[in-house]
Amino acid sequence: MTIDEMTEKECLEVLQRASLGRLGCAMDNQPYVIPIYLAYEPGFIYVFSTYGKKIEWMRANPKVCVEIDEVKGQTEWLSVLATGRFEELPEPQFEMERAHARELLQKRHHWWLNALAERRKSAPDESIMPLFFRIHIDSVTGLRSQNQGGSQG
Amino acid sequence: MTIDEMTEKECLEVLQRASLGRLGCAMDNQPYVIPIYLAYEPGFIYVFSTYGKKIEWMRANPKVCVEIDEVKGQTEWLSVLATGRFEELPEPQFEMERAHARELLQKRHHWWLNALAERRKSAPDESIMPLFFRIHIDSVTGLRSQNQGGSQG
Repeated sequence: MTIDEMTEKECLEVLQRASLGRLGCAMDNQPYVIPIYLAYEPGFIYVFSTYGKKIEWMRANPKVCVEIDEVKGQTEWLSVLATGRFEELPEPQFEMERAHARELLQKRHHWWLNALAERRKSAPDESIMPLFFRIHIDSVTGLRSQNQGGSQG
Repeated sequence: MTIDEMTEKECLEVLQRASLGRLGCAMDNQPYVIPIYLAYEPGFIYVFSTYGKKIEWMRANPKVCVEIDEVKGQTEWLSVLATGRFEELPEPQFEMERAHARELLQKRHHWWLNALAERRKSAPDESIMPLFFRIHIDSVTGLRSQNQGGSQG
Protein backbone atom coordinates (compact mmCIF):
# COMPACT_ATOMS: atom_id res chain seq x y z
CA MET A 1 0.00 0.00 0.00
CA THR A 2 1.13 3.54 -0.72
CA ILE A 3 -0.29 6.76 0.69
CA ASP A 4 -0.39 9.76 -1.62
CA GLU A 5 -1.62 13.31 -1.55
CA MET A 6 -4.71 13.95 -3.63
CA THR A 7 -5.00 16.82 -6.06
CA GLU A 8 -7.47 19.63 -5.36
CA LYS A 9 -9.61 18.35 -8.22
CA GLU A 10 -9.76 14.86 -6.68
CA CYS A 11 -10.64 16.33 -3.29
CA LEU A 12 -13.49 18.37 -4.75
CA GLU A 13 -14.86 15.29 -6.51
CA VAL A 14 -15.07 13.57 -3.13
CA LEU A 15 -16.86 16.59 -1.64
CA GLN A 16 -19.26 16.59 -4.58
CA ARG A 17 -20.44 13.03 -3.89
CA ALA A 18 -20.31 13.24 -0.07
CA SER A 19 -23.42 13.38 2.04
CA LEU A 20 -22.00 12.49 5.46
CA GLY A 21 -19.00 14.20 7.01
CA ARG A 22 -17.55 15.20 10.36
CA LEU A 23 -17.48 18.83 11.38
CA GLY A 24 -14.65 20.07 13.58
CA CYS A 25 -14.84 23.26 15.61
CA ALA A 26 -12.82 24.56 18.55
CA MET A 27 -13.12 26.74 21.62
CA ASP A 28 -10.12 27.73 23.77
CA ASN A 29 -8.16 25.26 21.66
CA GLN A 30 -10.43 22.38 22.71
CA PRO A 31 -11.62 20.60 19.54
CA TYR A 32 -15.15 19.24 19.14
CA VAL A 33 -16.23 16.87 16.36
CA ILE A 34 -19.72 15.80 15.26
CA PRO A 35 -21.18 13.96 12.29
CA ILE A 36 -23.12 16.18 9.89
CA TYR A 37 -25.12 15.80 6.72
CA LEU A 38 -23.94 18.14 4.04
CA ALA A 39 -24.23 19.29 0.47
CA TYR A 40 -21.32 20.79 -1.40
CA GLU A 41 -21.25 23.33 -4.15
CA PRO A 42 -18.17 25.15 -5.39
CA GLY A 43 -16.82 27.32 -2.59
CA PHE A 44 -19.30 26.20 0.06
CA ILE A 45 -20.48 23.32 2.19
CA TYR A 46 -24.11 23.63 3.28
CA VAL A 47 -25.22 22.08 6.56
CA PHE A 48 -28.58 21.70 8.24
CA SER A 49 -28.57 21.27 11.98
CA THR A 50 -30.26 22.13 15.23
CA TYR A 51 -29.08 24.48 17.90
CA GLY A 52 -26.42 23.08 20.21
CA LYS A 53 -22.93 23.36 21.59
CA LYS A 54 -21.34 23.36 18.15
CA ILE A 55 -23.33 26.42 17.10
CA GLU A 56 -22.29 28.39 20.17
CA TRP A 57 -18.70 27.45 19.53
CA MET A 58 -18.78 28.39 15.85
CA ARG A 59 -20.41 31.72 16.62
CA ALA A 60 -17.54 32.46 18.99
CA ASN A 61 -14.87 31.02 16.68
CA PRO A 62 -15.78 30.62 12.99
CA LYS A 63 -12.66 28.57 12.13
CA VAL A 64 -13.97 25.11 11.21
CA CYS A 65 -13.14 22.06 9.15
CA VAL A 66 -15.08 19.21 7.55
CA GLU A 67 -13.54 15.77 7.22
CA ILE A 68 -14.87 13.26 4.70
CA ASP A 69 -13.54 9.75 4.33
CA GLU A 70 -14.32 6.75 2.19
CA VAL A 71 -13.09 3.47 3.60
CA LYS A 72 -13.73 0.78 1.02
CA GLY A 73 -11.41 -1.79 2.45
CA GLN A 74 -8.62 -2.14 4.89
CA THR A 75 -6.01 -0.94 2.45
CA GLU A 76 -8.26 1.16 0.25
CA TRP A 77 -9.36 4.45 1.75
CA LEU A 78 -9.20 8.17 1.30
CA SER A 79 -9.64 11.14 3.59
CA VAL A 80 -10.37 14.74 2.56
CA LEU A 81 -10.24 17.79 4.81
CA ALA A 82 -11.92 21.07 3.90
CA THR A 83 -10.88 24.02 6.05
CA GLY A 84 -12.93 27.18 6.16
CA ARG A 85 -15.14 29.63 8.01
CA PHE A 86 -18.59 29.20 9.54
CA GLU A 87 -21.31 31.47 8.21
CA GLU A 88 -24.79 31.32 9.68
CA LEU A 89 -27.80 31.93 7.44
CA PRO A 90 -30.36 33.57 9.72
CA GLU A 91 -33.79 34.76 8.61
CA PRO A 92 -34.85 37.04 7.11
CA GLN A 93 -31.69 38.53 5.62
CA PHE A 94 -30.43 35.25 4.17
CA GLU A 95 -33.75 34.06 2.86
CA MET A 96 -32.43 33.30 -0.62
CA GLU A 97 -29.40 31.43 0.70
CA ARG A 98 -31.61 29.44 3.09
CA ALA A 99 -33.91 28.43 0.26
CA HIS A 100 -30.89 27.41 -1.78
CA ALA A 101 -29.41 25.42 1.10
CA ARG A 102 -32.71 23.70 1.77
CA GLU A 103 -33.04 22.73 -1.87
CA LEU A 104 -29.50 21.35 -2.02
CA LEU A 105 -29.89 19.40 1.23
CA GLN A 106 -33.36 18.10 0.51
CA LYS A 107 -32.13 16.35 -2.60
CA ARG A 108 -30.11 14.06 -0.36
CA HIS A 109 -31.51 14.37 3.09
CA HIS A 110 -35.25 14.64 2.96
CA TRP A 111 -35.59 12.11 5.77
CA TRP A 112 -33.20 14.10 7.92
CA LEU A 113 -35.13 17.33 7.65
CA ASN A 114 -38.24 15.43 8.62
CA ALA A 115 -36.49 13.66 11.45
CA LEU A 116 -35.28 16.88 13.01
CA ALA A 117 -38.74 18.34 12.81
CA GLU A 118 -39.82 15.51 15.09
CA ARG A 119 -37.01 15.94 17.57
CA ARG A 120 -38.13 14.94 21.02
CA LYS A 121 -40.63 17.22 22.61
CA SER A 122 -38.91 17.24 25.96
CA ALA A 123 -35.93 19.15 24.54
CA PRO A 124 -35.77 22.90 25.17
CA ASP A 125 -37.48 24.79 22.38
CA GLU A 126 -34.30 26.38 21.14
CA SER A 127 -32.70 23.00 20.55
CA ILE A 128 -35.31 22.01 18.00
CA MET A 129 -35.08 25.17 15.94
CA PRO A 130 -33.78 24.29 12.50
CA LEU A 131 -30.58 26.08 11.72
CA PHE A 132 -28.89 26.42 8.37
CA PHE A 133 -25.31 27.34 7.97
CA ARG A 134 -22.63 27.14 5.38
CA ILE A 135 -18.88 26.93 5.40
CA HIS A 136 -16.77 29.10 3.16
CA ILE A 137 -14.11 26.68 1.96
CA ASP A 138 -10.60 28.15 2.16
CA SER A 139 -8.64 25.03 1.26
CA VAL A 140 -8.98 21.30 0.66
CA THR A 141 -6.38 18.59 1.12
CA GLY A 142 -6.60 14.83 0.91
CA LEU A 143 -4.74 11.57 1.31
CA ARG A 144 -5.48 8.37 -0.55
CA SER A 145 -4.14 4.87 -0.08
CA GLN A 146 -3.52 2.61 -2.99
CA ASN A 147 -2.89 -1.07 -3.21
CA GLN A 148 0.14 -2.25 -5.04
CA GLY A 149 0.66 -5.75 -6.31
CA GLY A 150 3.44 -7.68 -4.63
CA SER A 151 3.77 -5.51 -1.56
CA GLN A 152 5.16 -7.24 1.46
CA GLY A 153 3.96 -7.07 5.05
CA MET B 1 -37.40 9.66 15.35
CA THR B 2 -36.21 10.91 18.71
CA ILE B 3 -32.69 11.99 19.69
CA ASP B 4 -31.56 11.18 23.20
CA GLU B 5 -28.44 11.53 25.27
CA MET B 6 -26.61 8.30 25.93
CA THR B 7 -25.44 7.23 29.36
CA GLU B 8 -21.73 7.04 30.09
CA LYS B 9 -22.02 3.24 30.17
CA GLU B 10 -23.58 3.19 26.69
CA CYS B 11 -20.87 5.52 25.37
CA LEU B 12 -18.10 3.29 26.73
CA GLU B 13 -19.69 0.23 25.12
CA VAL B 14 -19.47 2.01 21.77
CA LEU B 15 -15.80 2.86 22.40
CA GLN B 16 -15.17 -0.76 23.35
CA ARG B 17 -16.34 -2.08 19.99
CA ALA B 18 -14.97 0.79 17.87
CA SER B 19 -11.98 0.39 15.62
CA LEU B 20 -12.35 3.46 13.39
CA GLY B 21 -12.83 6.98 14.71
CA ARG B 22 -12.05 10.59 13.90
CA LEU B 23 -9.45 12.47 15.91
CA GLY B 24 -9.88 16.19 16.45
CA CYS B 25 -7.04 18.49 17.42
CA ALA B 26 -6.60 22.26 17.28
CA MET B 27 -3.95 24.94 16.87
CA ASP B 28 -4.68 28.65 17.31
CA ASN B 29 -8.33 27.63 17.50
CA GLN B 30 -8.21 26.08 14.01
CA PRO B 31 -9.60 22.52 14.26
CA TYR B 32 -8.14 19.60 12.31
CA VAL B 33 -9.84 16.21 11.93
CA ILE B 34 -8.46 12.93 10.61
CA PRO B 35 -9.63 9.31 10.59
CA ILE B 36 -7.72 7.04 12.96
CA TYR B 37 -7.65 3.40 13.92
CA LEU B 38 -7.93 2.93 17.63
CA ALA B 39 -8.23 0.54 20.51
CA TYR B 40 -9.98 1.48 23.73
CA GLU B 41 -9.38 0.33 27.24
CA PRO B 42 -10.80 1.93 30.35
CA GLY B 43 -9.42 5.44 30.68
CA PHE B 44 -7.47 5.44 27.42
CA ILE B 45 -7.72 5.35 23.65
CA TYR B 46 -4.62 3.93 21.97
CA VAL B 47 -3.69 5.11 18.48
CA PHE B 48 -1.02 4.09 16.02
CA SER B 49 0.00 6.64 13.45
CA THR B 50 2.84 8.16 11.49
CA TYR B 51 4.43 11.53 11.97
CA GLY B 52 2.50 14.44 10.48
CA LYS B 53 0.74 17.71 11.05
CA LYS B 54 -1.58 16.25 13.68
CA ILE B 55 1.36 15.16 15.82
CA GLU B 56 2.96 18.60 15.74
CA TRP B 57 -0.35 20.13 16.70
CA MET B 58 -0.98 17.74 19.58
CA ARG B 59 2.53 18.25 20.92
CA ALA B 60 1.81 21.98 20.99
CA ASN B 61 -1.75 21.56 22.29
CA PRO B 62 -2.65 18.24 23.93
CA LYS B 63 -6.40 18.98 24.08
CA VAL B 64 -7.99 16.44 21.72
CA CYS B 65 -11.22 14.57 21.08
CA VAL B 66 -12.21 11.35 19.35
CA GLU B 67 -15.56 11.03 17.62
CA ILE B 68 -17.10 7.64 16.87
CA ASP B 69 -20.34 7.16 15.05
CA GLU B 70 -22.44 4.23 13.93
CA VAL B 71 -24.86 5.03 11.14
CA LYS B 72 -27.01 1.96 10.55
CA GLY B 73 -29.72 3.69 8.64
CA GLN B 74 -31.05 7.08 7.87
CA THR B 75 -32.96 7.34 11.11
CA GLU B 76 -30.83 4.96 13.18
CA TRP B 77 -27.50 6.35 14.23
CA LEU B 78 -25.42 7.25 17.25
CA SER B 79 -22.45 9.49 17.84
CA VAL B 80 -20.05 9.40 20.79
CA LEU B 81 -17.43 12.01 21.65
CA ALA B 82 -14.51 11.30 23.98
CA THR B 83 -12.63 14.36 25.14
CA GLY B 84 -9.16 14.12 26.62
CA ARG B 85 -5.45 14.78 26.48
CA PHE B 86 -2.79 13.57 24.05
CA GLU B 87 0.07 11.60 25.54
CA GLU B 88 2.91 10.41 23.33
CA LEU B 89 4.61 7.10 24.09
CA PRO B 90 8.23 7.62 23.04
CA GLU B 91 10.96 5.03 23.38
CA PRO B 92 12.59 3.95 25.56
CA GLN B 93 10.83 5.35 28.62
CA PHE B 94 7.39 4.12 27.57
CA GLU B 95 8.49 0.71 26.37
CA MET B 96 5.88 -1.17 28.38
CA GLU B 97 3.06 1.13 27.28
CA ARG B 98 4.17 0.84 23.64
CA ALA B 99 4.15 -2.95 23.84
CA HIS B 100 0.70 -2.81 25.38
CA ALA B 101 -0.56 -0.41 22.71
CA ARG B 102 0.88 -2.55 19.95
CA GLU B 103 -0.78 -5.65 21.35
CA LEU B 104 -4.15 -3.94 21.67
CA LEU B 105 -3.97 -2.46 18.18
CA GLN B 106 -2.62 -5.55 16.47
CA LYS B 107 -5.67 -7.51 17.54
CA ARG B 108 -7.71 -5.32 15.22
CA HIS B 109 -5.36 -3.64 12.86
CA HIS B 110 -2.63 -6.00 11.84
CA TRP B 111 -3.03 -4.97 8.19
CA TRP B 112 -2.70 -1.33 9.14
CA LEU B 113 0.59 -1.77 10.94
CA ASN B 114 1.89 -3.58 7.88
CA ALA B 115 0.54 -0.97 5.52
CA LEU B 116 2.26 1.85 7.33
CA ALA B 117 5.51 -0.02 7.25
CA GLU B 118 5.26 0.12 3.48
CA ARG B 119 4.44 3.80 3.27
CA ARG B 120 5.78 5.25 0.08
CA LYS B 121 9.50 5.48 -0.08
CA SER B 122 9.50 8.98 -1.48
CA ALA B 123 8.15 10.40 1.77
CA PRO B 124 10.61 12.06 4.12
CA ASP B 125 12.00 9.56 6.58
CA GLU B 126 10.35 11.16 9.57
CA SER B 127 6.92 10.72 8.04
CA ILE B 128 7.21 6.96 7.97
CA MET B 129 8.35 6.58 11.56
CA PRO B 130 5.68 4.66 13.44
CA LEU B 131 4.34 6.64 16.34
CA PHE B 132 2.22 5.42 19.21
CA PHE B 133 0.17 7.67 21.34
CA ARG B 134 -2.72 7.44 23.70
CA ILE B 135 -5.45 9.75 24.83
CA HIS B 136 -6.33 10.12 28.49
CA ILE B 137 -10.12 10.21 28.40
CA ASP B 138 -11.56 13.01 30.55
CA SER B 139 -15.21 12.66 29.54
CA VAL B 140 -17.53 10.88 27.13
CA THR B 141 -20.89 12.03 25.80
CA GLY B 142 -23.18 10.62 23.15
CA LEU B 143 -26.39 11.09 21.22
CA ARG B 144 -28.52 8.32 19.80
CA SER B 145 -31.49 8.45 17.47
CA GLN B 146 -34.34 6.06 17.80
CA ASN B 147 -37.16 5.19 15.52
CA GLN B 148 -40.66 5.44 16.81
CA GLY B 149 -43.66 3.79 15.22
CA GLY B 150 -46.18 6.11 13.67
CA SER B 151 -43.95 9.15 13.35
CA GLN B 152 -44.96 11.54 10.65
CA GLY B 153 -42.82 13.31 8.07
